[in-house]
Amino acid sequence: MSQAPMESAALLALDWGSSGLRAFLLDGQGLTLASRSSAMGASVMDGRALAYVQALQQIAGDWLQANPRLPLLACGMVGAKHGWREAPYAACPANEAALAAQTVSVEFGQGRSLRILPGLLQQAAGQPPDVMRGEETQVFGALQQHPQLADAACIVMPGTHSKWAELRDSQLRGFATHMTGELFALLRQHSVLGRLMPPVDVASDSSAFLAGLRAAREQGELGLSHQLFAVRTLGLTGELAAAALADYMSGLLIGHELRAGLAWRDRRGLAQAPLLLIGEPGLCARYAQGLRAFDCAADLTLDNTAPAGLWRLAQSAGWLRLPP
Amino acid sequence: MSQAPMESAALLALDWGSSGLRAFLLDGQGLTLASRSSAMGASVMDGRALAYVQALQQIAGDWLQANPRLPLLACGMVGAKHGWREAPYAACPANEAALAAQTVSVEFGQGRSLRILPGLLQQAAGQPPDVMRGEETQVFGALQQHPQLADAACIVMPGTHSKWAELRDSQLRGFATHMTGELFALLRQHSVLGRLMPPVDVASDSSAFLAGLRAAREQGELGLSHQLFAVRTLGLTGELAAAALADYMSGLLIGHELRAGLAWRDRRGLAQAPLLLIGEPGLCARYAQGLRAFDCAADLTLDNTAPAGLWRLAQSAGWLRLPP
Repeated sequence: MSQAPMESAALLALDWGSSGLRAFLLDGQGLTLASRSSAMGASVMDGRALAYVQALQQIAGDWLQANPRLPLLACGMVGAKHGWREAPYAACPANEAALAAQTVSVEFGQGRSLRILPGLLQQAAGQPPDVMRGEETQVFGALQQHPQLADAACIVMPGTHSKWAELRDSQLRGFATHMTGELFALLRQHSVLGRLMPPVDVASDSSAFLAGLRAAREQGELGLSHQLFAVRTLGLTGELAAAALADYMSGLLIGHELRAGLAWRDRRGLAQAPLLLIGEPGLCARYAQGLRAFDCAADLTLDNTAPAGLWRLAQSAGWLRLPP
Repeated sequence: MSQAPMESAALLALDWGSSGLRAFLLDGQGLTLASRSSAMGASVMDGRALAYVQALQQIAGDWLQANPRLPLLACGMVGAKHGWREAPYAACPANEAALAAQTVSVEFGQGRSLRILPGLLQQAAGQPPDVMRGEETQVFGALQQHPQLADAACIVMPGTHSKWAELRDSQLRGFATHMTGELFALLRQHSVLGRLMPPVDVASDSSAFLAGLRAAREQGELGLSHQLFAVRTLGLTGELAAAALADYMSGLLIGHELRAGLAWRDRRGLAQAPLLLIGEPGLCARYAQGLRAFDCAADLTLDNTAPAGLWRLAQSAGWLRLPP
């Protein structure tokens, strides 16, 4: 975009996670006027404020210059302890007002500032704590796009650290993290299992993925650390081709997440509520196939809802720059 | 040992695993006359036959020279596909005769040869295959040391890849692998969880270890990949000190193994049979504490039983060099 329609811009929404930065120029109705992305995630900033300022100027300097009164709102790891400015966790359950109330501001020159949303900390009796940072905004973005979810929904956000969240009465009531993506990457890159796999994944093997899912569903009580060893033995005996082993392993890991996650959903009283998938489309498609293997289906699959969530939170807090 | 009592030596027993080589000079009653160890495990040999010959000469060249008729028997990864000489897996269930029958020989000069025991391959209907290589010898070594186990025993061998084995009617009837040690090392060295831990483990925190065990026992249905994330959140919130996080994680991983392993034991009809731990004493002590957290106890804890197993297998196959 060389010339953004700056006159109608109401918010610069920043989805600023560990591994990347996405910037969205939104209008007064929440429509996206323009968007950009960069690899300048919080994990490469090493906590240096100047690096954040530079990344922000790099991705949106022209927008900021063209619109000196444009408000900015960010979510994600940019607000972590080792991010740009810590936005301490808000307590879960939380509604939009609670998130807005705990937003922090950081100045970045010429009197301008960026608002950063807090993450959520869940502390339930008899349970270790759980945290999210960025996914809370995805949840409210889904609500923004689909107001009928306000009553109740189970929202699954697959990823490095997958989150399962309960939305009820427009409140983020509780959630649970699964380290599925990180475990896959660790095992793929560093374990004895990865050594049997081709160095680069080629075409996905859907039947091996399904076999892994079924093993998790039907025999998950044998334990994940036991079932993972089958990736090795199926390779050693030639029962699975080397190129299929990563998919079998993925099926096992996603299957164990679904096994535990669906039980969590049922315990939260969400068995009849809409089930959503939010995330990168390719990954959501794998989870959708996974859900089918568990005789379930996603009622909705949404791509990144962070901009919708940032807009909704800014709108309800009165932070949008609306035309006079 | 400069001068081994070579005249009474009946076997050179080699426990030759991935990460090390242990040599035992045994007499006609199975007593250890001398032992040595080296770091020349199969994993550093890169499959080169010459490297194996050199490692063998290095650890036992003087013994071999002093006793030209000394028989040699090895178990472990030395017989893997990428070891010195492949000893293809024998089928599980297996007794001693089956293992002896599938032993292979490799010559290493001057007409001398080393016998290498096979590993075991389990292929049960409706289950992925499972494999062991070296642990089968540990099992028969335990039987050699404690003949009363012949009827039935559940034998747990903790390690990088822990093995749970069923010994029944002097036969190794079935087994299950858990990748507990490898998962711990991966998570410790490469995951987001390891980053919160001190670079080097200091004193062990027994109460954190116990808390991890209890979480696995009482809430394991929440899923290992969910519960592992608590290592991060307990660290972030300061509920556990950084120095205690590795022990909590160890408790979770060992707890999940015990949860699944004890259920496996019960399904195999071994709930009333003796329960054994075999392995490195420090690790066995952790598993013993783990068993207590599951209201169980090990009936016997044994250090390396490989030499006893090698002797027993050689004895029953008629391979010992006995005095005239």
